[in-house]
Amino acid sequence: MNNERLEKQLTFCKELDKEKFIKRQTLLRDGATYEDDAEHAWHMAIMCLILSEYSNNNIDLLKTITMILIHDIVEIDAGDTYAYDYAGIQSQYEREKKAAERIFGLLPDDQREKYISLWNEFEENKTNEAKFAHTMDNFQPCMLNNETKGKKWKDNNVRLSQILKRNGHTADGSEELWNYQLEKFIMPNVVSGKIIDDKNE
Amino acid sequence: MNNERLEKQLTFCKELDKEKFIKRQTLLRDGATYEDDAEHAWHMAIMCLILSEYSNNNIDLLKTITMILIHDIVEIDAGDTYAYDYAGIQSQYEREKKAAERIFGLLPDDQREKYISLWNEFEENKTNEAKFAHTMDNFQPCMLNNETKGKKWKDNNVRLSQILKRNGHTADGSEELWNYQLEKFIMPNVVSGKIIDDKNE
Repeated sequence: MNNERLEKQLTFCKELDKEKFIKRQTLLRDGATYEDDAEHAWHMAIMCLILSEYSNNNIDLLKTITMILIHDIVEIDAGDTYAYDYAGIQSQYEREKKAAERIFGLLPDDQREKYISLWNEFEENKTNEAKFAHTMDNFQPCMLNNETKGKKWKDNNVRLSQILKRNGHTADGSEELWNYQLEKFIMPNVVSGKIIDDKNE
Repeated sequence: MNNERLEKQLTFCKELDKEKFIKRQTLLRDGATYEDDAEHAWHMAIMCLILSEYSNNNIDLLKTITMILIHDIVEIDAGDTYAYDYAGIQSQYEREKKAAERIFGLLPDDQREKYISLWNEFEENKTNEAKFAHTMDNFQPCMLNNETKGKKWKDNNVRLSQILKRNGHTADGSEELWNYQLEKFIMPNVVSGKIIDDKNE
């Protein structure tokens, strides 16, 4: 057995445990427990399997699932940046790039290069796989926020224009899912006042 | 948009949220937080990507990852059965089979059949993909138990013979990983007394 290679791989695998402690701004169905990054990535990955037929373009499913599974690993170092934390977002890319280099850098060279490249592809959001992975990354928390009757939107005084801006590329991965998300998850919460309606401001 | 189909798919996707509440008997690195099934499946899925080169046989990686992602969904209804709860294990298969029918039954027919079949394939543990998925299912908690210095083995008075029986098929997926697991994760905890050494009893 090439122990040096396996030891590097397992150092990375052990590091992954930390992602289970990174809490997001999304509540689970009990309306009290915050979702963590590992749970989010797992949920997105299965949703990608179930919903890939709605992708605008043909996608390589293994590549898309892989991208989804690893997309938040950088938050082990960089932390979760809330979608509407604009100060945090400004420094987000640099913090996450450094994190990617350290964490994927635990792997043997060939795997380090493969996974940094895949993470970059997700971030750049140009390929069909990256676009659909981003659709899942936006659709899944929106679905959960609607399940908890928009509680986090209300608590955080989120405005419709912010959600629409955040979802500026959701339709690039799937027109059908974006239309559903807007009609069934977002607009009912505008009507109920959980999301601030600022479209006439 | 075929709304009836999408509605069924999303009913299933929303149901998945419940898996995040199913706690396992494995501690995370802080030695205090119990891992949940969603975190476990996510961790196993990435480990499968990183470690698939050690599989005894060629495997279809997308199929193996899919199997891993869904393998514990049945625990939403059936609960987690601890590896050394022998009374629980006796009724486990029937409880989980019923759960698979209900939960995957939320999906449209074609997907219901696909995922019940894949879950059965995992349970039967005969194909190369199922064997490697089982290797991950045994290797990952053993790695975490070793990271927390065998605390849960000690707390639960686990005996070496129980661990060896539980891992009776781990080598079927990967001889190399099983040898590593035995040498680096299990035996040091026998030496330190965290696992009861009953081999001479």
